[in-house]
This record gives sequence, structure tokens and C-alpha cells, in this order.
Amino acid sequence: MTRDLTITEVRLTPILVADPPLLNTQGVHQPYTPRLIVEVVTADGITGLGETYGDTKYLELARPLAEHLTGRSVTDVNSLFGIELGVDESRITGQVDAGGLRGVQSADKLRLSVLSAFEVACLDAQGRALGLPVHALLGGRVRDAVEYSAYLFYKWAAHPAGVPAEPDEWGAALDPAGVVAQAREMQRRYGFGSFKLKGGVFPPQEEAAAVRALAEAFPGQPLRLDPNGAWSVETSLKVARELEDVLEYLEDPTLGTPAMAEVSAGLRRAARTASDQGGDGRRAGLPLATNMCVTTFGEIKEAFTKDAVQVVLSDHHYWGGLRNTQHLAALCAAFGVGVSMHSNTHLGVSLAAMTHVASTVPNLHHACDSHYPWQSEDVLTERLVFDGGRLTVSDTPGLGVELDRDELARLHRRWADDDGSLRDRDDAAAMRVAQPGWRTPVMPRW
Amino acid sequence: MTRDLTITEVRLTPILVADPPLLNTQGVHQPYTPRLIVEVVTADGITGLGETYGDTKYLELARPLAEHLTGRSVTDVNSLFGIELGVDESRITGQVDAGGLRGVQSADKLRLSVLSAFEVACLDAQGRALGLPVHALLGGRVRDAVEYSAYLFYKWAAHPAGVPAEPDEWGAALDPAGVVAQAREMQRRYGFGSFKLKGGVFPPQEEAAAVRALAEAFPGQPLRLDPNGAWSVETSLKVARELEDVLEYLEDPTLGTPAMAEVSAGLRRAARTASDQGGDGRRAGLPLATNMCVTTFGEIKEAFTKDAVQVVLSDHHYWGGLRNTQHLAALCAAFGVGVSMHSNTHLGVSLAAMTHVASTVPNLHHACDSHYPWQSEDVLTERLVFDGGRLTVSDTPGLGVELDRDELARLHRRWADDDGSLRDRDDAAAMRVAQPGWRTPVMPRW
Repeated sequence: MTRDLTITEVRLTPILVADPPLLNTQGVHQPYTPRLIVEVVTADGITGLGETYGDTKYLELARPLAEHLTGRSVTDVNSLFGIELGVDESRITGQVDAGGLRGVQSADKLRLSVLSAFEVACLDAQGRALGLPVHALLGGRVRDAVEYSAYLFYKWAAHPAGVPAEPDEWGAALDPAGVVAQAREMQRRYGFGSFKLKGGVFPPQEEAAAVRALAEAFPGQPLRLDPNGAWSVETSLKVARELEDVLEYLEDPTLGTPAMAEVSAGLRRAARTASDQGGDGRRAGLPLATNMCVTTFGEIKEAFTKDAVQVVLSDHHYWGGLRNTQHLAALCAAFGVGVSMHSNTHLGVSLAAMTHVASTVPNLHHACDSHYPWQSEDVLTERLVFDGGRLTVSDTPGLGVELDRDELARLHRRWADDDGSLRDRDDAAAMRVAQPGWRTPVMPRW
Repeated sequence: MTRDLTITEVRLTPILVADPPLLNTQGVHQPYTPRLIVEVVTADGITGLGETYGDTKYLELARPLAEHLTGRSVTDVNSLFGIELGVDESRITGQVDAGGLRGVQSADKLRLSVLSAFEVACLDAQGRALGLPVHALLGGRVRDAVEYSAYLFYKWAAHPAGVPAEPDEWGAALDPAGVVAQAREMQRRYGFGSFKLKGGVFPPQEEAAAVRALAEAFPGQPLRLDPNGAWSVETSLKVARELEDVLEYLEDPTLGTPAMAEVSAGLRRAARTASDQGGDGRRAGLPLATNMCVTTFGEIKEAFTKDAVQVVLSDHHYWGGLRNTQHLAALCAAFGVGVSMHSNTHLGVSLAAMTHVASTVPNLHHACDSHYPWQSEDVLTERLVFDGGRLTVSDTPGLGVELDRDELARLHRRWADDDGSLRDRDDAAAMRVAQPGWRTPVMPRW
């Protein structure tokens, strides 16, 4: 009982991790993407792990926050959110993040994305110190495994010639056959039972054809398409109607709550009409999901009041951690809105955190997204393993993962050795290496 | 680290506790009111405490739930909410609870009210076992003291002659002067800086006069009036306009979300008009608070969408515990709705629980209600003490309170010896002892 939970040291380690040439509407993933690994160390020498975005603007906030942590207890997490961090507003463009594809940038989201890594690290340390898994600190799991979906991408076979990059064994996927082949390999390796295709890359009809091909290859299995807001309201409605018999939900077809609300209203109107006419339209219409127009608590009221979205894809990074994710889930439940999880490029620390909180959310009715299969590198001594598309929820104290310090040091050296060109993820800049005239598309692109 | 957090025993102790003759729109408090004390005992012999309503319908649910608890860990709380308890629907009248004045009865609210006591008891046991205060299990406190308001009641000097009852030193309060005298005594003893008057007892103009008298006696201090839904929309609007310069908020003037929404819209319309005319009306209008039309997560969507209420008075008993209270607070924050805490007759176990969770809620901007000063009896070895209207948040492991087993046994004997007439709180029945023709008023009463 004489444990000392006081934080005596906080270590911040920016790293660059290998990323394959995955395509999205902004451009292509860089060969290496920045992440930040946070370690909080207690007076008893227990270390807790957290992970978040590693771009410069996050690092600049993480450093002063780290100083605030020293001397606090790892249980003292709620008060972190009241700390004034002085977000440098000049770094906030107010535009959709070129790398993140996670909605409009805001000072709040930036601050919460940094705080989330500290919250997770505190929970991990607390769990290790108390002998409890992180889910137990969150009230306990309500399921023993968490289901994930295959996250399919259009991709090149390799990064552009001459660009330093890690080997990539996945090959190209640039048409329906390539997407289906990738899906089959994802299923073979990890057992995923549902499939999400990152769209917004090719004209909508080509992507609709890929979804149709998936539906034929995997009949009855849940499918999703995410064009990252690349479509107009009209295009969104058209493609949604075409694919409504095979999609579980359509994710962020268009940008912003007002446009999403228009699409949503159109789909629900059409569904009622089809239903009234005795057709086979779903009564409620194809659900719209988002991780772009509802990304902070401040965006919820408008979106929910307007019924703009039917599923919120939570992301503990930008919602501000695991407890905030639980709050969000309760909020969604109260409004009859579904909840699942968004993913950006991340490593095993964040995947473990996602899995712990997902295991505590009763109303998680859709498989979560994860980029993890695309990450050939990790900072863990043992990678997390999908089995039947699921991750078993760990009952080991803390997150249940261990840091590989040699690998962390290696990936940090890569960051330290970088000339700065890769330290801020920029998918449009990466695309310009292959297509010199490339500019971030004006939305709606189609 | 070799703690065993498994629950090996659950003890349920129904008790009857002394209650003064406090008046409300349904009738008068019985001389003794039923409460249930829950104890969960771990394999290591650590005991956690919880408290909830003690009426028969709660006991009938608590007994089977207690059996579900044995063999579980005290950290395994979220999954309790998924247990099918088989609420006996015949006990649910669908009417406003005659004793509770806490909105329309529902199977969900009944179930959650029972679960809340088990959640709190598990958190208390967990905290004691781990050496952490309950607030730390909830992410840590964001304040070191929680503010409470004086809860003023119209009351008789004593229960009816011939009715067994404990002595009552507070005297009568049946007019403005009596209310002000009671408020002064509350302030003298406990230092409260804000005042709530339980209304719905006398015609609205008499209660408005009492509020005016309080405003003169305590200039600038926050005042609230709670008629428990006894008024029509018209009466609500009229009294609200008369008192809007002195009230912090008006609580449940009328019954049900549609009627509350009408009052709310009327107040906001009037405020805009006054503001447009350069008058002194508040731009937003007098806020409406509720613990009657928003008492479960299922009632939130309609109320928030219609802007029917501006402050939700949470009650961890019927919202289903401390984590659900945190979820509710986050939900309110997202919708720009204020949050504070409701109270019914309760003892120190519940007051400690309220204080722990209140200390973790960042957006708690109003003093909480508590009946505690009216309870001359408690099951604790040491009563909680208001200082300057506040309770210091305990950093002792668990809730920070200790059970007085002798007193618990004495109050349980009172329950066991009762012929059944007091085991189900019924304020209308208690009123009929003094006024034989009394019937629960038809609402709206005025």
C-alpha cells in the first residue's frame, strides 16, 4: 500500500515510422510518418506509455505539458485538461489537416491530441502500479475481444523511385481487382470480417465499382467507403443510393456538418419514399459516419440536432483520451447515434489503448478501424496480433504492452537524422515527388 | 500487489431514518423514511459502502443483483449495467413518484437507482483496497471542495400529534418570515451561500413572496425555487417573469418536457424582446433547471433538442452511479447545458459519493442540493461537516467515511419492527394523517 504514484519524470520521444504509399484524397502517405511516444515515470520507477501524433506542432505543446506533469499523481488526470497550454494559433490553419484527414484543425483538437497521450500514459502507469488492466480503471470491460475491420487502401507498389523507404510486400492496388486482392490478403492474415475502403482517390464511379467487387467477393460482410469529404452533396447522394444495399455505412462523403446534414436528409427522405412504395429501401436510409465533421465535443450539438450523422467514429487521440471516449459513447447512446473508432497511422501503444477503451463501451456496434496492419515497425517487444479480426482484451496490468527501447532508439535516430522534410506529415508534398504539379485538391473534388 | 478484489459477500440493510415534517406538493415527509445500505465485502475483507432508496420495489431488485455480484471483481462495474434484473413492471405506475418527486417512474430509473448503490460500494471497496480516494478512481478531482446550497422547506413544527417521531429542533416555516428564519439558521450553522426553496406547497404568489423575502434578506446571493411541476405553463411564465431578477434558476415549474419547453421558449422570447427594447431583461432569459423531466439518458434528446432546460440537476442514484454522472456532465457541456446535483432524503454515504463525483466535474457551476442537514440520524461514525457551505473533498482511500454498525443495526431494527406502513415512502399518506381528506393534487395544481 505504500506506493508512490507521483510522476518524477516524463520522456518524450519523437520517432519516424515506416509507412507504405497509401493513397488518399490529399495525396499519398510519406515513406516515414512522425509519431510521439510519451513515457511517464513514477517515483517507484514504474513507466506508463502513451502515443500520439508526432508533428512539430504536437511536440511544441507536449514539451510544456510534460513539465506540468512532474510532481503530480498519475491518478490526477482530469485536471490536466484545465491546464492552459498556449496553443500557437499560427499553426492552426482552420483547414482540413493535410496529413491527418481528420476534419478541420482547431486549437482544441490539437491540445486534446497531445493530452490524450499523457492520459493514456498515466492510466498505463496507474494500472501497472495497482496491478490492474487499463480497462479496469475505466470501469471494466464488457467484452473480452474487440473487433476490427480491414482498412483497405488504394496504393502504389512502392514509394517513388529514389525516395528512401522500407520494403513493402503488399503490392499495388489501383483498381477493383487490386482492392479485392488486398482485402483477401487482409482477411487471410488477420481474419477481418468487415472491410473499409479509403476512397476519395479515384472518380466516384471507380470507387463504387471497387465496393461492388468487394460485395461480390465477400457477400453479406459489412463494407464501408470513406472518400474523406471529396464529394459534393449531389455526388454523395448519387453514390450512396447506388451502394446502399451493400454498405454498412458511408463515411464522410462530403465536408462539413451542413453538407453532411443535406446528404443525410436526402437519404432518409429517399428511404421513406422507397419504404412507402413498398420497395426494398431501408426505412432509416444508409447511415452516414464521420470522423471529420464531429471530432470535438463542440461540434456535436449542431450535428446531432440536424441528424447529420448516424455513426461517430471516435478517436481517443483527438477526443482527448480514454475517459473522453467513454463520455462520447454515452453521448452517442443518448442520441441514438452509433459509435465506432477511427484510426490514423499508429503503433501498438495506441492500438492497445483503443482496445482497452473499446472493451468498456457497451454501445460499440461496429468493428473499429485500425491502420496497424500497414505498420511494419512498432516500438513494442511483441506486436499485437489480430485473430479472427479481433484483438483479445488484455487483463495484464496497465495497457499490457512493453516498450522495445532499442527499436524506440532506432526510430528516434531516424527522426533526429531527418533534415526536417518528414517531421511534419504532408501527404500532398509526398505526392508532388511523383507528380510534381500535384496540389491539394479543392473540395468537393467530384 | 497480491490483493484479491473479488466480492465474496454483499450485505443489504434496509433502514428507516428520521425525517422532519417537510412539505412538498405531494404531501409531507413521513416521520421515518426508508433507505438501503449496501456493503460489498472483498476476499481480503475490505468493505465498500453504497446507499440508495429503501422502498420495497428497490429492495426486490437489490436482492437478485446482490447475488450477481458475488464472485466478481469490485473493478468490474460497467458490466453490471448489462445484467437483466427483471424489473417487476406492475410496480411502475408511470406516474410521478409519490415519495420521490423525481419525475415519472420508469423501469430503467428503478434499475439504475439500485445499480448506483452497488457501483458506489464497488468504488469505495476498490479505493480502500488500492489506497486511493474514489475521486482518483474517476480521474481525480478538479477542485478541493464542493459547494452546496441550503435546501429550505416549508414545514410544520412537528409531525402530527400521536405519530411516533424523533424530536425536531427546526420549528415551523409556513410563511416568508418562517422561510427567512430557516435560511438564516441554515447559514449560521453551515455557511451556505445559496438557497433553494422547495415550493409547490402554497399558491404561487405566497411562494414568490417568500423568494422576495429571501432576496431582501440575502441580497445578491443565488436563490432557487422548485415547485415540483405544480404549475401550469401560464403560471410558470408569470412567476418566472416576476422573479427573474432574483432567481439563479427556476426548477421544474411545470411537468414534462413539452410544457417545460413552452415555458423555456416563452422566457427566451420575452428576454429577447426586453433586450431589443433596451430593457434590463437577461438576454438568455431565466434558466430552467430540472430533475423531473430529464432523469435518464433516454429523456435527454428531446429536452436538449427543444432547449426545454438550461440546467440538469443530476442525481447519481437515478442516473446509475458516479461514472454515469460524469457522462451526463460531459453531455451537458457539449450542449451548453449547465449541470448541478439534485438531492432527495439521504445519509452520509450518498453525500460522500456526491462530493467525490462533483469534485471531478469541470462544468459544475452551481452549488449542489443536499437534504443532509435535515437528517438528524446517520449511519456514519462521523457526520460530514459543511464549512462555509462547502464539503472538503476527502483524499482518504475510498469514500472516506466509516460505517457505525451499532447505529446501522438500530435503524435496521426500526425497519424490521415497522408494520409495513413506513417501508414505502408515501408523502400523500403521511399528509392524510393530519388532513384526512388529502389526495395527491392533480397537476398542474395552479
